[in-house]
Amino acid sequence: MRPVYLDNNATTRVDPRVVSAMTPFFTEQFGNASSMHAFGSEVGAALKRARQQLQTLLGAEFDHEIVYTGSGTEADNTVLLSALETQPGRDEIVTSTVEHPAVLALCQWLQKNRGIKVHYTPVDSRGRLDIEAYRKALGPKTAIASIMWANNETGTIFPVEQLADLAHDAGALFHTDAVQAVGKVPMDLKTSEIDMLSLSGHKLHAPKGIGALYVRRGVRLRPLLRGGHQERGRRASTENVPGIVGLGVAAELALEHMHEEQTRVAALRDRLEKGLLQRIGNAFVTGDAENRLPNTSNIAFEFIEGEGILLLLNKEGIACSSGSACTSGSLEPSHVLRAMKVPYTAAHGAIRFSLSRDNADEDVDQVLAVMPEIVEKLRSLSPFWKSSEKATFAPTYA
Amino acid sequence: MRPVYLDNNATTRVDPRVVSAMTPFFTEQFGNASSMHAFGSEVGAALKRARQQLQTLLGAEFDHEIVYTGSGTEADNTVLLSALETQPGRDEIVTSTVEHPAVLALCQWLQKNRGIKVHYTPVDSRGRLDIEAYRKALGPKTAIASIMWANNETGTIFPVEQLADLAHDAGALFHTDAVQAVGKVPMDLKTSEIDMLSLSGHKLHAPKGIGALYVRRGVRLRPLLRGGHQERGRRASTENVPGIVGLGVAAELALEHMHEEQTRVAALRDRLEKGLLQRIGNAFVTGDAENRLPNTSNIAFEFIEGEGILLLLNKEGIACSSGSACTSGSLEPSHVLRAMKVPYTAAHGAIRFSLSRDNADEDVDQVLAVMPEIVEKLRSLSPFWKSSEKATFAPTYA
Repeated sequence: MRPVYLDNNATTRVDPRVVSAMTPFFTEQFGNASSMHAFGSEVGAALKRARQQLQTLLGAEFDHEIVYTGSGTEADNTVLLSALETQPGRDEIVTSTVEHPAVLALCQWLQKNRGIKVHYTPVDSRGRLDIEAYRKALGPKTAIASIMWANNETGTIFPVEQLADLAHDAGALFHTDAVQAVGKVPMDLKTSEIDMLSLSGHKLHAPKGIGALYVRRGVRLRPLLRGGHQERGRRASTENVPGIVGLGVAAELALEHMHEEQTRVAALRDRLEKGLLQRIGNAFVTGDAENRLPNTSNIAFEFIEGEGILLLLNKEGIACSSGSACTSGSLEPSHVLRAMKVPYTAAHGAIRFSLSRDNADEDVDQVLAVMPEIVEKLRSLSPFWKSSEKATFAPTYA
Repeated sequence: MRPVYLDNNATTRVDPRVVSAMTPFFTEQFGNASSMHAFGSEVGAALKRARQQLQTLLGAEFDHEIVYTGSGTEADNTVLLSALETQPGRDEIVTSTVEHPAVLALCQWLQKNRGIKVHYTPVDSRGRLDIEAYRKALGPKTAIASIMWANNETGTIFPVEQLADLAHDAGALFHTDAVQAVGKVPMDLKTSEIDMLSLSGHKLHAPKGIGALYVRRGVRLRPLLRGGHQERGRRASTENVPGIVGLGVAAELALEHMHEEQTRVAALRDRLEKGLLQRIGNAFVTGDAENRLPNTSNIAFEFIEGEGILLLLNKEGIACSSGSACTSGSLEPSHVLRAMKVPYTAAHGAIRFSLSRDNADEDVDQVLAVMPEIVEKLRSLSPFWKSSEKATFAPTYA
């Protein structure tokens, strides 16, 4: 039985073509890009090319609008701190209740330790942002609005263009954590109002340890890491050449596979989702099924524990997740589902299936083959299920 | 003619054994270490092993004293900011004039923007720290003293144990940027007074994009990157698994090659240095030749420009550097040599040769074969040389 990996929102397998492209930069072209000799200049040319590949995926106007970082988290942290530092008169942040911890944890720290006022825009039961609340939260004190492009747990896509416009109306910067969206949905930043955007290599078949920040030309950025003059003085540290080269190739491949992501991968996801909902009662899709990433399905199975499901799926060689890897280890249900006011009896049993172009029909078959029995078994052990007497095949979303 | 790489203090070739160890973690064991399934737990075991390999190289007491970062710069920045944050009553930093920009640039920013008082301890003409000035700078307001283990340009080694003791006498933390020392000199942190230590993978034949911070158990660390709970809440970001695994193997190899570094590599360096000084007049070693890294020789060739030397060496397939890669692109002579008060006519012509276990006898032969002619050629064009009339074979250091 081949292992089935359906946790691509946690991390992806590096594409073998990406690995091939990176390999020479470990042992042959290993120079420091800042060096004045041939070992350095060879590498400089490779970095230039990789920057352009990523620029193309993002539809950015200039390649120097890209600043490489060590992770999506570093990109997110850099943006928020920079926005406050470059606009001393503005000490408020507008974000949402369903952001990634890389935004939320920093915001909470800024609130507590720096006296920054943070507005957490709520979402509705389908995970859609309350645009009116967002608009009201914006004002002359807003340094930056930071709303994710797509939610990592439910896949729900936010109307970032509209949100960027509204932020600009208030004179604020607009940033989007697009870690889950880059490579899955088309982007054209040169025609967009988005000022800054974060991404992470390992979510799009590039390696872990490389991220990037898009910073529109003219937007001031204060570095988070201070030291050498790399990245035009915007991020000190010797360039992670293999990582940058790998991210470049991964960007090119993502563009090539974009149509497949939108069609074949989306169809696989839909077959998985429909199949599960047909076979298992008291289960429903969380998030905005009309408007979400093509690869993600978050399904709440009522009256059982997600951890139990994961363990039994793992025994069958199937990998997926409850909540996100970044917050796992916690027994609390996901902050995203809580923000959506998904009932506890359902939120506890929510499972995120996240696919990629690496998945095939048999992966879906395998999940459909084992999942009904797993849910039945866990429910037979669940005191909540026994007392509920409300087995139904009527999900709240159809 | 094989290319001769003598710029190992800028970056090193990744050891092919490191690449082999990393490779499976791109495409096979690619899970997120925080995930609750087999893909994640396999990776968790590999991280544990890698952490122990690095622990052994450092002689640390516990493997959880290691916090992985994206670079040496990130490690340095994290330490200084954390020391200020965890000790609100202490708002001074003691450092030296010859630190890496990852320390100096942040210190300058803290001075200017956060009202932090920074004491830059001077060095003497051989690059040795003025211990008395250091001692006097320490006081009840000192949050942290940060002095590098070994200088990246001259290789001069600082008495970090003594400096840590003195810092502790003042109730301050002691940190050392050991980016150039780790893997080149033996360490046993469990018997040391050092509280925190920074290192960078790519200086010891591991890849770029991975660094680490040693934090003695009991020393409080506030994260620089906030988000997920990785690294026991001390550094948010999905773990760079291949980088961490690579750094682990590189640490093990560094330990295996430590004797070679101290003997064969040092002998190569000495032969290069003696050979150059015998063949070329008006040249001298900068830094403390009695007490320096086994791989580094920084030689000032008077009355010519280092950039000119580098370009002509590059034509011969030889790579080395003037100053450090992190500050290259600047026409100012190195801040390290300026701090040592090396005369401008010499500091401008300083070249750093930095070797590694990858170097062989023929590399030294090749430099010795071309360097006299290069220096002669440049001096014949130099107005300073023509007017100086003081050609001599008497270096200031013998």
